[in-house]
Amino acid sequence: MYHTSSTQNSIVAFLTDFGLSDGYIGVMHAVVIGIAPHSHLIDITHAIPPQQVASGAWVLATAYRYFPAGTVFLCVVDPGVGSMRRPIALQAGGWYFVGPDNGLFSYVLGEQALQAAVELENPAYRLAEVSSTFHGRDIFAPAAAHIARGVVLEKLGPQLDAASLVRLPARTARRQGRLVEAAIMHIDHFGNLITNIPLQLVPDLFSASAVTLTFDDVAITERRSFFAGPSHEDGKPFIYGDSSGYVAVAIRNGNAARALNASLGAAITLAIIDEVAR
Amino acid sequence: MYHTSSTQNSIVAFLTDFGLSDGYIGVMHAVVIGIAPHSHLIDITHAIPPQQVASGAWVLATAYRYFPAGTVFLCVVDPGVGSMRRPIALQAGGWYFVGPDNGLFSYVLGEQALQAAVELENPAYRLAEVSSTFHGRDIFAPAAAHIARGVVLEKLGPQLDAASLVRLPARTARRQGRLVEAAIMHIDHFGNLITNIPLQLVPDLFSASAVTLTFDDVAITERRSFFAGPSHEDGKPFIYGDSSGYVAVAIRNGNAARALNASLGAAITLAIIDEVAR
Amino acid sequence: MYHTSSTQNSIVAFLTDFGLSDGYIGVMHAVVIGIAPHSHLIDITHAIPPQQVASGAWVLATAYRYFPAGTVFLCVVDPGVGSMRRPIALQAGGWYFVGPDNGLFSYVLGEQALQAAVELENPAYRLAEVSSTFHGRDIFAPAAAHIARGVVLEKLGPQLDAASLVRLPARTARRQGRLVEAAIMHIDHFGNLITNIPLQLVPDLFSASAVTLTFDDVAITERRSFFAGPSHEDGKPFIYGDSSGYVAVAIRNGNAARALNASLGAAITLAIIDEVAR
Repeated sequence: MYHTSSTQNSIVAFLTDFGLSDGYIGVMHAVVIGIAPHSHLIDITHAIPPQQVASGAWVLATAYRYFPAGTVFLCVVDPGVGSMRRPIALQAGGWYFVGPDNGLFSYVLGEQALQAAVELENPAYRLAEVSSTFHGRDIFAPAAAHIARGVVLEKLGPQLDAASLVRLPARTARRQGRLVEAAIMHIDHFGNLITNIPLQLVPDLFSASAVTLTFDDVAITERRSFFAGPSHEDGKPFIYGDSSGYVAVAIRNGNAARALNASLGAAITLAIIDEVAR
Repeated sequence: MYHTSSTQNSIVAFLTDFGLSDGYIGVMHAVVIGIAPHSHLIDITHAIPPQQVASGAWVLATAYRYFPAGTVFLCVVDPGVGSMRRPIALQAGGWYFVGPDNGLFSYVLGEQALQAAVELENPAYRLAEVSSTFHGRDIFAPAAAHIARGVVLEKLGPQLDAASLVRLPARTARRQGRLVEAAIMHIDHFGNLITNIPLQLVPDLFSASAVTLTFDDVAITERRSFFAGPSHEDGKPFIYGDSSGYVAVAIRNGNAARALNASLGAAITLAIIDEVAR
Repeated sequence: MYHTSSTQNSIVAFLTDFGLSDGYIGVMHAVVIGIAPHSHLIDITHAIPPQQVASGAWVLATAYRYFPAGTVFLCVVDPGVGSMRRPIALQAGGWYFVGPDNGLFSYVLGEQALQAAVELENPAYRLAEVSSTFHGRDIFAPAAAHIARGVVLEKLGPQLDAASLVRLPARTARRQGRLVEAAIMHIDHFGNLITNIPLQLVPDLFSASAVTLTFDDVAITERRSFFAGPSHEDGKPFIYGDSSGYVAVAIRNGNAARALNASLGAAITLAIIDEVAR
């Protein structure tokens, strides 16, 4: 019935678009701790732009690998709350994921084998009263807490077919020769622009004789392997390999998103020029 | 002397208007953990609008029921810090509440029987030095931590008469026939407008042939039982029953507060029209 | 090998300029908990203005004294990440400090004796892969977690000479007779202006017949020992002794920074006039 000792310190990690101003997160924490008092709660972020499922999926995919195996990820970016979209729990790659079936876990599932998937249907693992607008509190938090306590997924509801899960379009860009058509997938707190170009896709990024990253009327050609540099170079945008494993753009001691007027989702092109190969 | 085992995982739940930018909350957490190392700290919110006691009271009243019995709520929205307003601790309905006597606990006391009330006067349960501007750190955090460790309220200072506690005006609207005169009591992170009309006051909200909610020059007539709906209906405001138990207004995939130019405290009228009854 | 029992509840306290929107903090929490599962994590703040080392140093210096001895402070405000600046760990006054060697710990070291300092060079106490842009995750979080588990500093890398540590200019203002030339060192969530004038430097602040605090074209002469007062005095700026131990300026139920158009770092002069002494 239980997959682990019920007194362990399981981790429950939260990711939502709820913000921190209303007490919604505190209430979800309380529901989890009420059911699983020995769990350790970690907030990944609650500042996903409202209702932006792909943004939530992206941040989750950059973060989950750093959490210990067995961590339960409680993720709610849920424009369809109260409608027919299914509440689900997944096991993939040694971690657990709880939230709406709207694609939020797509990018993780692009990297990790799915081990189990269920619909959260069993009322014994929900709060007694379920509202139509706050499933984070009434369905997802109790489910995550019960999983953290060691309840096996099969107890929570009927198994789901992997093919039936909602998936977002593929996360990462494709390369054709020297060109990569891509997009800005995340703009971070410092204004850095993180693209969907994995560094493995462009092993020649730093060795090629020249590169150009373009979007709107912006063209960036400088490359740097780290942020620091001569301070007279502050203000100039450059391309770097982000800690998430993707190509990105930054301005040293500045905000690239503001300076370049960049927006989430903007289409970009990366051209890699290798004079030697000509 | 102690009401519980001193090694239990008591919960201390924080609600303030301190924001998260200055380290004030980290210091309060540190003071609590220094005194009660086994307690579990949960932040309800620190984004109550500065000095808005009624907003703090509202958010607390929507949240406290979801916390386990014995939770100590450490609440500081305190424009009168350093003046003659009393620092207090209450026991009500199985929970504990610590903070200034300025009405912050009024809405909870409207729902839960008061079991004990004391003034936080005993210097043994304060920090050694008490500043005139940060009682959250110097008086309230130590008191909450000692209560979480099991110190009984009576040790913290003299008992207070229930009638002497400061109370805010009643929280919830009154109904006269088909009309409810009410107010916008909270605007959440999504821009949803939450009124002070309890859903129990309007059991005919969804069954009546028509309703109109008005404020300023805005009139809303659409009702929905959940957020999701056809996407061509994005942008149109509607009335719904919020998860807090109150009538509210939202725009699917939009921000009602911005779109309708609504402000906290604005007066609203809800008219319930029942053609059948005519 | 271990300075304490490995199952204790050590505290790891975080202070960064990373914001809360990207999952960076959640990932650092996860790395710490993965290595030191019994540690208690406290966030001091993650809203230090980007790359403002002196602001980070200031907030840390107002906060650290309230944490229990043995607390590990994990601090990252790090414009030089990936460059030659050294990653370090210090022991001072019974606490531990982990972060970049760029002056972030200067103000603490101005108050506490340095007991040990090492460079974080030992790969056994880093993540297996170290990025060039996120040392908070790859170097500092693992180091802090190992220290929290009881690993002695000497294991983490070679000892550093105290004189080699980067220091910021002195934190506090100097007084010459009745004049103090100073600066605005912090603007808090309420818009209060906190100066670098220690209250001990001006024991006559409240007893002198008059004082004037000036910056730009602003002159403030009112003094108050606490915030509360007659409400007809809302809107008028006044001088008070902040809970951090420094002279500050506030407006009751208002935002002094906005009302006075004050900015971080602005030069101020405090003149103390004592008619009696003439």
